[in-house]
Formats: sequence, structure tokens, C-alpha cells
Amino acid sequence: MTDLLWPGDERAADIFADAAVLAAMIQVEAAWLGALADAGVAPPPAADDLHGLLDDADIPQIAAAAESGGNPVIPLLNRLRPRLAARNAAAATWLHKGLTSQDTLDTALVLCLRTATAVMHEQLLSQVYCLSALAHRHRSTPMPGRTLTQHAVPITAGLKFATWLTQILDARDHLSAVTAALPIQLGGAAGSLAAITALADAAERTDAAERTDPAMAEHPQRAARAGAADGARRLVAATAAALGLPVRDPWHTNRIPITRIGDALVTCTDAWGRIANDVLTGSRPEIGELVEEPAEGHGGSSAMPNKRNPVLAVLVRRAALAAPGLAATLHVAAASTVDERADGAWHVEWATLRALARRTAAAGSQMSELLRRLTVDTERMAATLAAARPGIDAEQRSIAPDAAPGEPYSGAANEIIDAALDRAREVAP
Amino acid sequence: MTDLLWPGDERAADIFADAAVLAAMIQVEAAWLGALADAGVAPPPAADDLHGLLDDADIPQIAAAAESGGNPVIPLLNRLRPRLAARNAAAATWLHKGLTSQDTLDTALVLCLRTATAVMHEQLLSQVYCLSALAHRHRSTPMPGRTLTQHAVPITAGLKFATWLTQILDARDHLSAVTAALPIQLGGAAGSLAAITALADAAERTDAAERTDPAMAEHPQRAARAGAADGARRLVAATAAALGLPVRDPWHTNRIPITRIGDALVTCTDAWGRIANDVLTGSRPEIGELVEEPAEGHGGSSAMPNKRNPVLAVLVRRAALAAPGLAATLHVAAASTVDERADGAWHVEWATLRALARRTAAAGSQMSELLRRLTVDTERMAATLAAARPGIDAEQRSIAPDAAPGEPYSGAANEIIDAALDRAREVAP
Amino acid sequence: MTDLLWPGDERAADIFADAAVLAAMIQVEAAWLGALADAGVAPPPAADDLHGLLDDADIPQIAAAAESGGNPVIPLLNRLRPRLAARNAAAATWLHKGLTSQDTLDTALVLCLRTATAVMHEQLLSQVYCLSALAHRHRSTPMPGRTLTQHAVPITAGLKFATWLTQILDARDHLSAVTAALPIQLGGAAGSLAAITALADAAERTDAAERTDPAMAEHPQRAARAGAADGARRLVAATAAALGLPVRDPWHTNRIPITRIGDALVTCTDAWGRIANDVLTGSRPEIGELVEEPAEGHGGSSAMPNKRNPVLAVLVRRAALAAPGLAATLHVAAASTVDERADGAWHVEWATLRALARRTAAAGSQMSELLRRLTVDTERMAATLAAARPGIDAEQRSIAPDAAPGEPYSGAANEIIDAALDRAREVAP
Amino acid sequence: MTDLLWPGDERAADIFADAAVLAAMIQVEAAWLGALADAGVAPPPAADDLHGLLDDADIPQIAAAAESGGNPVIPLLNRLRPRLAARNAAAATWLHKGLTSQDTLDTALVLCLRTATAVMHEQLLSQVYCLSALAHRHRSTPMPGRTLTQHAVPITAGLKFATWLTQILDARDHLSAVTAALPIQLGGAAGSLAAITALADAAERTDAAERTDPAMAEHPQRAARAGAADGARRLVAATAAALGLPVRDPWHTNRIPITRIGDALVTCTDAWGRIANDVLTGSRPEIGELVEEPAEGHGGSSAMPNKRNPVLAVLVRRAALAAPGLAATLHVAAASTVDERADGAWHVEWATLRALARRTAAAGSQMSELLRRLTVDTERMAATLAAARPGIDAEQRSIAPDAAPGEPYSGAANEIIDAALDRAREVAP
Repeated sequence: MTDLLWPGDERAADIFADAAVLAAMIQVEAAWLGALADAGVAPPPAADDLHGLLDDADIPQIAAAAESGGNPVIPLLNRLRPRLAARNAAAATWLHKGLTSQDTLDTALVLCLRTATAVMHEQLLSQVYCLSALAHRHRSTPMPGRTLTQHAVPITAGLKFATWLTQILDARDHLSAVTAALPIQLGGAAGSLAAITALADAAERTDAAERTDPAMAEHPQRAARAGAADGARRLVAATAAALGLPVRDPWHTNRIPITRIGDALVTCTDAWGRIANDVLTGSRPEIGELVEEPAEGHGGSSAMPNKRNPVLAVLVRRAALAAPGLAATLHVAAASTVDERADGAWHVEWATLRALARRTAAAGSQMSELLRRLTVDTERMAATLAAARPGIDAEQRSIAPDAAPGEPYSGAANEIIDAALDRAREVAP
Repeated sequence: MTDLLWPGDERAADIFADAAVLAAMIQVEAAWLGALADAGVAPPPAADDLHGLLDDADIPQIAAAAESGGNPVIPLLNRLRPRLAARNAAAATWLHKGLTSQDTLDTALVLCLRTATAVMHEQLLSQVYCLSALAHRHRSTPMPGRTLTQHAVPITAGLKFATWLTQILDARDHLSAVTAALPIQLGGAAGSLAAITALADAAERTDAAERTDPAMAEHPQRAARAGAADGARRLVAATAAALGLPVRDPWHTNRIPITRIGDALVTCTDAWGRIANDVLTGSRPEIGELVEEPAEGHGGSSAMPNKRNPVLAVLVRRAALAAPGLAATLHVAAASTVDERADGAWHVEWATLRALARRTAAAGSQMSELLRRLTVDTERMAATLAAARPGIDAEQRSIAPDAAPGEPYSGAANEIIDAALDRAREVAP
Repeated sequence: MTDLLWPGDERAADIFADAAVLAAMIQVEAAWLGALADAGVAPPPAADDLHGLLDDADIPQIAAAAESGGNPVIPLLNRLRPRLAARNAAAATWLHKGLTSQDTLDTALVLCLRTATAVMHEQLLSQVYCLSALAHRHRSTPMPGRTLTQHAVPITAGLKFATWLTQILDARDHLSAVTAALPIQLGGAAGSLAAITALADAAERTDAAERTDPAMAEHPQRAARAGAADGARRLVAATAAALGLPVRDPWHTNRIPITRIGDALVTCTDAWGRIANDVLTGSRPEIGELVEEPAEGHGGSSAMPNKRNPVLAVLVRRAALAAPGLAATLHVAAASTVDERADGAWHVEWATLRALARRTAAAGSQMSELLRRLTVDTERMAATLAAARPGIDAEQRSIAPDAAPGEPYSGAANEIIDAALDRAREVAP
Repeated sequence: MTDLLWPGDERAADIFADAAVLAAMIQVEAAWLGALADAGVAPPPAADDLHGLLDDADIPQIAAAAESGGNPVIPLLNRLRPRLAARNAAAATWLHKGLTSQDTLDTALVLCLRTATAVMHEQLLSQVYCLSALAHRHRSTPMPGRTLTQHAVPITAGLKFATWLTQILDARDHLSAVTAALPIQLGGAAGSLAAITALADAAERTDAAERTDPAMAEHPQRAARAGAADGARRLVAATAAALGLPVRDPWHTNRIPITRIGDALVTCTDAWGRIANDVLTGSRPEIGELVEEPAEGHGGSSAMPNKRNPVLAVLVRRAALAAPGLAATLHVAAASTVDERADGAWHVEWATLRALARRTAAAGSQMSELLRRLTVDTERMAATLAAARPGIDAEQRSIAPDAAPGEPYSGAANEIIDAALDRAREVAP
């Protein structure tokens, strides 16, 4: 999987790659088989890890066949079942039993999102370290503060970095909360767990018949069914536990888990885009305060060796411009949901999530590297500030007319920096 | 303020109306004056509630003058100050001192958002009550479950309503969390609290001079300044307390508080849109399961008295289609932020928030009324289900071939309903 | 109508104001009455210009009543009819006869769009003049060309202005083409012209009965009806002619006319935003090449008199960030259309069009003023270019190693400028 | 290239596939070499078709290396040049000379768009044929017209199909106009054709020296340069001719060609989405008027054989929900452009165009197949209409109280159909 038109895409590695999605779907099906067998709904041999049955060569066929049923789960099962039957007949019989396509695919998407967000958490953490160091180091580095493109009052570079840091911490908190709540999706055809309950019911009746419990003999059907519903939910819980996901009743048509993760991802790219904008401005040769030190071979222009293009900042900004449209598509989909499974609004989420997750992961990696390579030209900052005087000191003269010339005017910058650093230390000690 | 092109807009009352925004800005300025006076930074008479100085007739002039400085705060102050001077010279001198336009406007927007979200919380609560009753009442009302527009398996109407209910509860939780975190914005020209610190510094020096503390006499300037920064932050905290807002260090360029509230609002309209879609489908005469009972005079068509248009559902769906684009604009703005105040990305937020908040409030009101007026035609549901047989029972026959004809196949619907009702009772006892 | 939160909104004057929308709806109804009377379908006295029946005081009531039928046409008619009956009973009888709400509202929106785009055409024309002068004047003004924020090769300011000019000409061509095609909407309840045809039919039968044409006497009904359909379409054509709009068969559910105008408007704000970005960059004090000369009282900061905020550029950029989300909403609506009139997708267009049109008009006015106030600092340009040497000449040395030092490297800039000026002269002689 | 998460993606074949983009870039470079050689700027042997130098195995390396310069052109050239040198030293010397990365990539994107839109034109044409037949065949098929989900007045199925047809014709006209205007992009580093002019200049001087024209000898430099700019533009024109593209002066920062094609593509998906919505509604079992006949193996649900999912309509609707966000991203990018090449706003276009083009092509193919498979159940239409009586005839009774019961009320439906068919015949005779 290459993407010639999204430079840096390989940084997203196999996040949401077709093979990863396929593996996640298989993981869901295997967890389900395990839960059925463990609960005695299916016979013990029905458990199967489903490893080794499919490989990458199956992807094109499954992808091509996905259209006929509208999703990739059906062709996946069609391909999986006969091979499974050859090695484990019981598993083949019980494969996917009680589930609906949306169960498998939604849970697989959640698994892929979990992988993706784990990567982003590492990225954000690395940025927290990096920005903490920058904020600390440049606590006393004066530079011009700018508003509406114009010089406003002096600030310190440390204050700017602390502001970046706080936004990264906010984005991280947001992503953490949303990721932790990403739930399993198991509901059956219309979200009632009907088939699963029927399976549990049948299992209980068998047990009951064997136990010949006289107390339950009067209303065996009702008692079995109430127990069966509990049994069904226990199956869901067992599968969730196997996958390490929170339990949740079916959310086939309540897409808040999806829109929330989309919003959390775009909150990350917003934060990175905002930093990239400052770097791009600071990289302008006329300003020259922030320089993206090129890696060897990076940022060059063959014809114009004079140029040191801030390539990482450019590409991060690119991602930040693209993400809002993708997150909005998830909301349009959520708002267009209908019935017990939507007629297109569900389907549009998949590739949208993939694009959003891969691009966010790539942008996060680029941002981490950008921050590591960032050089702060304190001399340029000082020179620009000096040249901006006395204009840039106008507010100080107005508000503190008795201040001595050159008296600092950094306000609570240090306290703001310290608060940000304290908060950073909680997550990045 | 009327909006001929957004029927139902008057349901949003004065949320974010120009007069409300103006009042909120004045409230911020008054709280600031109070904090300055209370802290002894300004003389006691500088406190002023600023009531009665402006009225609605001032709005057009302020609006027209807003362009020249790029925001409405500057003309507001220009208009306020001379009138204030006539009644309270000290207050006029200290008005807005130490603040920047963004402080006043951002905090005013936060106050307007708080008002708006309080309304929405009431709406969501009323919907929780209404949907709880519906889910409870129709716990045993069978209806066809539908996926991809086709009959899937039978469900109960109660399950459908419980699913709606859960999404409303989710939206409410989300909105609550985000609303509670909407912070004050006070940072001064470049977010360093520089002017405020200088004011606090001057006040402390005066005190110190009066106290002539020998211990501080050695390094009076440094000691004063460290204390001054703390004093500045105490001023912020006092203003926040007066306004009932959480304290936060300046977030002029970290727009996560804004994008989060935007995301929370669109999460509400998503939920309402999703319900509206089910009502619109259920209202189709060929289906007829869900009927929006018209209020007297509602939903009529002059030429076609046969029609009973589901007007509220239509208008809610409208809002749900519009909201994602507005929330995305807030993200585009956040991602386009630069410097210590952005050159357009900040400005685009204001009217976007207003449109999003008013429309969400109107849609929430319409949804509450829609749910109150919703009639469930259980006979049509039963008839459609009967007509869908035996096809719709195919899964049951497949999964439980021994089931008696007519045996229920509702799975864990009751348990899912009970879980939703339990959760509802926590917020709506 | 003021908008405190969209500074500059008053530049849009009464474009799409509630009163203007109301007037346009009345204009449509009057034209229809006139067409009915002229064609002999209604009696001659049924023609009525409908002037003087409603005034601004009616707007709140109509707006408030719009919800009950889902649109403002029904309460408008309810309010209009009794007053009209008092002065012209025939007109009151025939008012709106044969039409549906969407006919009146869509056509009224088209009339409002025509007014808005006429304003924008004047703005674009003024910009063409202004940019032509700038491109001509600065044909030989050297400045650094910049790519990815870095100095690339020298260009001339004239080339930059010619590039701006070309984009304005493109936007104007696009807007012209789309505006000219904005059609009338008259289709009746389900877009078949059924009621209108029935009215024409009845009129023809009366005529035929009077003429007692023996040839038509055999199949009077069929002949009348075929003629009646033609008569219906002639009524549409006559109404279109009275309103100065192109004829088109009903497009109730084909929203391409709406999305195309939306796309044309955002194409304008894109162009203005792109220019504003260059001005904002050029306005940075470290660059200082382009200066937005403030009007008296504009761009000031009370506390920081040093600042000369490029307020117009900031506000134009703001509009450019907001427009794409609005145009996208029109596409989401078009894609969500269903049946013979959509259940929400139609309704979301109205206020979206209004916001897009008003903001585009305001931004166009701001851009025109910005270009008039734009000062080009040729000395700063020259100085920056000099400082960028020899790096910025690297490509020239590479591609033309024998070039004498200081030899121009402006390529075909003059020819590109001339081509743009030639094209400009066609529209702005 | 497979896309497990966008079922039907393989219908887009190799449109905008990495290999196709690579081939297009090579095609641009080859055309440029040819133009240089033909014009005598480069020596004749410098012409080279560049075939056979790279293959698919190079894509991963080029993709991985794209980040370092921010785009894939630089690594493409780095990979191409040494291999080319081995077979054609002159070509290797002149490869890409005078161009900038954006020239190659923009023109390559245009070539890919041309391929994509050619496919879509065929799709639209096939849909015109199909819908013409449907409109003609069902000219007299009565069905209920529906507005706001409710029965309005009777229409004919032919009228509905004619409305669909008109929208397809509109979309096709729009796409044709925009596609035909997709221009070449050749401007050099900053859009001035500076390097190209220098190359042409050098060539002319050599010629002039050989010709020793005494008339030009006086001011050889100036004369050569004016001629050189013309020569540069002739080189652009020759390259455009070789690629079959319109000539245009550089549009590096005027992105109207890009936003217009984006708008044209979403105009197509809007049209298809609108048709899909009608099919989805008509496919509901309670309505049953329109049925997407499944291909063998299509639309099935393993567990619920009763279901006949309208899979193609679902997937088309999916694409229609995704496209507006992508087209809006292109506008955000256009509005965020700055300098002589943008710092991220350009880069975001590439993958956005790819996703939009591939999905539009896949949706167009699905829509064509859907229309071919569409079954119209005239009996269900008639039955529903009968059941809707007498309510649905209310308008007719009101407007034509003397009409005989059962008298048609189809208005100008036939004339509207005929007009649509006439227009269709112009493009699909």
C-alpha cells in the first residue's frame, strides 16, 4: 500500500490497511467463536483462533466481492468457512453464528481505531516531552507577540511553546477519553441480540433438560428465555473481554462513538495545524525565528538550493486542512442514519475513518519529527523585537507609564509556563 | 430578530441575539471592573454594574462600527465610556483596562453558549422523560426491524425508542461535560497577562510603599513582579468566579474549547436528525407506524387537505443537515489559527457559533414537541409485521429451527430497554 | 437587521433581508396573477401588483407562523389574502392559484440571488479596474517570488497582481454564467403543472364553448387538454418574462441551479481569500510589502497605537473560511433530496443561501475597498529582494550560467500581464 | 490496489491509481522534452518518450521519498534521470529543465482527471439512454406524487424519470464544460516562465549569432528576450498540444480549475444520490414501486434470505454523502492559497481529487448498473394510488371541481417528458 499523493503516508504503517482490517475482522470472529465455546453454547471444539486461513492474496477477491452484499464481511465469511471446515468442522458450523455483518465490521473498525490511537498517544506524549523542554528552555527568550499579523506586545518564546503544549495536552486528554470508550458492537440483525439469545436459549434448554429442574418445569420457556437474554449479554461481555473492549448495548444506529472519535482526531490535527502555521510563519526568511532543520535530503529544491522548505510543517498543515471535511462527513452520516441499519450512512463511515486515521497518524509523526528538528533562532527574535521598538512597547507605556525603559513586560508568562509544565509532568514525568 | 428563512427560529428566543451578546460583553466588563476594585487594583468606586448605559438602540451603531477595528468590542467601549464617565468617572477610567478585545468577546461568547446549552439540557431532559415513557409503554409492541430499507427481523417499538433514548443520553452526557469546561478567557494583548500583571504590580508597589516592608526592600521590583503575576491570576480567578466560569490560562489561539462545544452541538443535532429520519420514514402513508400529530393549524397544506406533513420532523432533519458544515468551519478555523491572535480564523467563529447554537436550540425544542406529539400506531406495526411473514422470520427459523410458530424473537430487547431506563432514571428520576 | 457578530454585514444592505425575501415572494405572486389575467385564465381584474398590503410589521407574524406549514409562503398568503380581498376580490380569489409553496419560495430566492449577484458583479468589475491598474503600474516592480513560504526566484509585483486579476476574471465569468441561468420555478404540487394545466383547460373550454369550433367539437376534451398543457407552459413563460427570468421546466428536486450558484459564490470568496492571504502576509511588519491603508478610524487598537491591523483583509479571509462549509451544505441537501419535494433537504437551503449571499456580498465590498486602499511598498520589495541575493538568483545562474549579473529574470511576466490586461479590457474597457 | 472499505472501488479501475499518476507525470515530462527538441531549444536527440524506464516496482520507493521534497516529482526525477542517462544522455540533461514540480504534478493531475471524466461521460451517456427509455415507457404509468413524505397529487412514473433524466443531462453539461477547460500547467518556479524564457533566449541567441542579423545586432539582448518570452509560451503551447490540453497562463495559485472540477464531480454524485434516494424509498417493502433487481449473488443476506437489499442504491447514496466534504476541502484549499505556491493548500488537493474522482467513477458505474436493473412495479404504483384516493385527488377537486371522476390530472407531464427526451436525443441520438 503506497500513496504517491499523500507524501508521508508510509508513516501510518499498516494502520487501517486492508490487511489490518481483515485481520481485525478475523480477530472478532475468533473471539466470538471462543465465547460461544466457553459458554457452552457451542461445543468446545468450535473455538478456533482462525489463524492461517487467509492471507494477503485473499484481499483482492474479498474486496471485489464486497459489493455484492454491500460490505466485506460476507465475502470474508464465504472465503473463510470452507477452509475452516477442512480443519475444524465445528468452528465452521458456528462461525459468525448469531452475528450480523455490522457487528463484525464495526468491532473491527474499533480495533483498528484502537491501534491507530495508541500510535497517536505515543506521538502526543513525545510532543509533550519536546514542548516541555522548549517551553522550559525558552522561558526567558524574548520575542514579539503578534496579533492579526501585527506586532502587539513582547512575549517570550517559552510562552508560545507553553501554549502549544497546552493544546497538545488538551488534544491528548480528549483522545484518551474517547478512545477508552470505544466499545464492542454486537447486536445481531436488528440490534436486539435475538439470534444470540436464541442460541443461548437452546443451550440453556439443553442444560435444563439434562438437569430436569422441577422448579423451572412449570414455565420452562419463559424462564429459559429470560436467562437466555442474560446469557446473550454475557456472551457479548465475554467477547468484549477477549478483545479488551468496553461492553455496550448495540449502537448500530447511534453513531456517537464514531463521531466522537472523528472529532477527537480532527482535534489533534487542529492542534498540529495550529503549530505548523506558527512554524511556517516563523520560517519565512523575513522572520526567520523558527527553522525546521531539514533532515539530510529533506526540504530541498533541485533548482533552487537557496530554499529550505519547511516540508514537515507544510505537510502537517495539509492534513489539518483535510481533516475537518472528513469529520464532518461522519456527522452527516450520523445525522442521516435511519431504521435499524442505515442505507448508506453506515457505509460511508468506513473509508472516511480510514483516511482520517491514517492521515492523523502520519501528521502526528511528522509533527513529532518537526518539533525535534525545530531550531529557535533567539537572535532573530531579539533583533525583530528590537526593531519593533518603541512601537511594540506602547501598551506598556500606556499601562505602566512609570516603568523603566527595558523593564520586562512578560506578565504571568512564567506562571503560565509553569502551569503547563506541571500538567505535562503528570502525563510525561 | 426574525428569521423568515429558518422556520422555528423564534424557539431560540434571544439566544445569541445581538442584544444578548451585547449584554454578555457588558457583563464581562462589569465583572472585570468589580474584580479590579475588589482587589484594590482600582479604587473602590471603579466597580460599576454598567447597567442602563446602553440599550437596543445602540446595537445598530455598534454593529456598523465593528468593522473598523474588526470586532464589536472596540465600538462598544467607545460608546460605553463617555456615558459611564458621566456617572462614574473612576469606572470609566478603569473600564476594560488590562484586557484585550478577544478577552471580552470570547468570554461573552462563552456566556451565551452557557445560556444556550442550559436550554438544550432542559430539552434533552424532557426528551429523556418522553422517550423513557415510550420505551416503557411499547416494550411489547412488535414491529418489523428494518436494515438497508428492508425487513430484517421483528423487533419491538420499545427497543427502537430505547435506542433513541440512549443516543439522547449520550448526547446529553457529552454536552454536559463540554459545557462545564467552557472557561473564562482573560489574557491581555498577547495572552501573557502582561497589562494585568502591570496593574497588579503597580497596586502592590503602592501597598508595599505604604507598608515599607524591610524584607522586600532589597529586591522590591522582582518580588513585586512575582507577586504581581499571582495577583493578575487572582484577578482572573475573581472575574471567573463572578461570572460562574471555570478558570483557565489564556486560550486565544488554542481553540479546543470552541471546537468541542461545536462538536457537542452537532452531536445533539445528529441524534435528533436520526430520530427525525425514523419518524419521517414511519410517517410515510404506506408505513404509517409513527405519526406526528399536528398541532392545530400545523402541517397543513392549503390545497391538499389530505396531507399531514410531519413538519417538525422535516425541520429537525433540516437542522441536522446544516450543523455538520458549521461545526467543520470551527475546525477549519482552529486549524488555521496562527500567531497570538489569528487573522480571520478567530473572527469566523462568532457568527458560526451563533448559527449553530440558535439552530440547535430551535431543533431541540422542535424535537421535544415532536416526541410529545408522536403517536405510535401499533396496529399498523402489527399489520406490517404480519404481512412480512414468513419472510421476516427466516433468521429465527434458521437459528432456532425448533421454535414454535409465533414464538417471540425479541432477544434481549427488554434487557436493553431496562438498561436504558435505568440510565435515564439517573438523570430524570 | 444588524449582525454584531459579522462585522461588515451592513455592506450587504438588504440582500436577502427578511423584507427583501418577503417583497420577492409578493413579486412572484403578483407576476403570477398578472400572467393569469393576461392569458384570460383569470378575469382581467385579477391582476394586482399586491403593493401596499404588507409592511415590515408583518414580518414577525409571518416568521412565527412559518413553522406550522414548514415554510413562510403559507402564512404570507394567509395574511395577504384578506387584505387583498378588501380591495380586489378577484385577485384574492386567484392569488397563488395553481402554485405550490415551493414555486413561490424558490422563485423568490432566485430573485434575491439575482439582486445579490448583480451587486457582486459590480464589485468584481471594480476589482478588475483596480487590479488592472495595479498590474500595469507595477509591471516593472521587482519583488521576491515565494513558494512554500521561502524565496524562490524574483518576480514582479505586476505579475502577482495579474495573477490576482485573472482569478477575479475567472470568478466573474463563472458567476455570470451561473447567474444568467438562474431559472423560474413553477411546477405546482408535484412538478407536473397539473393545477395550472387544469386552470388553462377550464379557460380553453370556456373559449371553445364560445367559439363552438365544429372541428374541435368531436374530441373536445383531449384537444383542450393538450392545448391546456401548452397553455400552462405559456403561463410559466409569461411569468418568467415578467420577472426577467429564464424559463425552465420544474426543478423542485433537481437542485443543480442551487448548488451551482452556491459553488459560484464560494468561487468568489476563494478568490478574495487568496488575495487577502497575500495581503496579510505582505502586511507583516517584517515583510511590509503590501499595506492596507487604514481608513480614518479603521484598523486601530486602542491600547496599541503601533498596530495597523489589516482589518479588511482579516474580514475577507474570515468569509473565505466560512463559505466552503455553506456551499457543501447545499450539496449535502441536493444529495439528500427525495420524492417530489424533499423532507428537510429543501428547507436547509434557504438560510444557507442567505448567509452565503450576504457574506459574499460583504466580502466583495470589503475586497473592493481593500484593493483601493492597498499601498505597494516598492522599496521594501526591492530591499527584500536585494537581501535575498544571491540565493534567490540560484535558479537563474543554474539555467543561464552566462547571464550577466543583474540581468532580468522575469520570463514572460510582461506577456502574462498583457494577456490579463487584454482580457480585463473586454469586461472593463 | 484494493479498497476493502469502499465496496465497488474496483469499478474505478486504474483511475488515479499510483501507477496512473506516475505514468501521467512521465507523459508530461516526455511531452516537455519533445517540445524542447522540436523547438530547437534542446538538441533533437533530447526528445524521448521515457517509456520503459520505470515500472510499478518503483512506486513504493518514489512514494516513500516523496516526503523529503514534499511532492512525488522530485523522487521521480531522481529515479528517472540516471536510467535515462544510460540510454539518452541528451534527454537526461534536458529532463524537466525549466519546469517546477507543480508544473509536472498539476498537469499530471489534469491528465488523470481527463481520463476519469471521460469514463464518467460514458456513464452519464448510458444513463441518458436508460432514463430516456424509462421516461418514454412509463409516460402513462400513474403513481402517487409525494412531497414531504406524504401523498400529494398523482403523477406519472414517466415524469419522475424525466426529472431524473434532466438532472443527469444537467450534470453532464456541467462536467463537459469544466472538463474541456482543464488546462495545462507550466509556469516554472514562480509562475513567470522565467527559466523557460531563459532557455528560449539562449536558443535564440545561438540562432542569432549564427544568422548574424545586422538589424538585431544593435540591441540583441532586448530583442532576444522579447522573442524568448514568446518562444517560452510557444513551448507551453506545443506541450499542451502534445498532451491535448488547452493552453493557459500559469495558475499555480489560482485554483479555480481545481475547484470547478471538484464541484462538477459532486454535482454528479448529487444527481446520483438523489436518484438513489428515490430508489431506496421505492424499494421499501411497504412501497415496492422500484426494485433493484439483484445480480446473481448480489444484495443477499446469508441469514435473512427474505431480504433483497438495494445494494447499488445504498452504495451510491454512500458516495453522495461523502463527496460534499471532499469538494469543500478543495475550496478550503483554494481559499488558503498564498504566495506563488501555497504551503499545504496545494498539497491537500492531490489525494482529495483522487478520492473524489475514484468514488465518483465507481458511483457512476453503480448508478448505470442500477438503472439497467431497475424494475418498475406498475401494479404496486397503481394500487398505492388507488388506496390514496380520494385524498390524493383533493387538489384536483378543488381546482377543477367539475372534472369527471378519474379524469387525468397529469398536467404538462407529457410535455415535460418530451422536452427532456428531445434534449436527451441531442446527446444520445
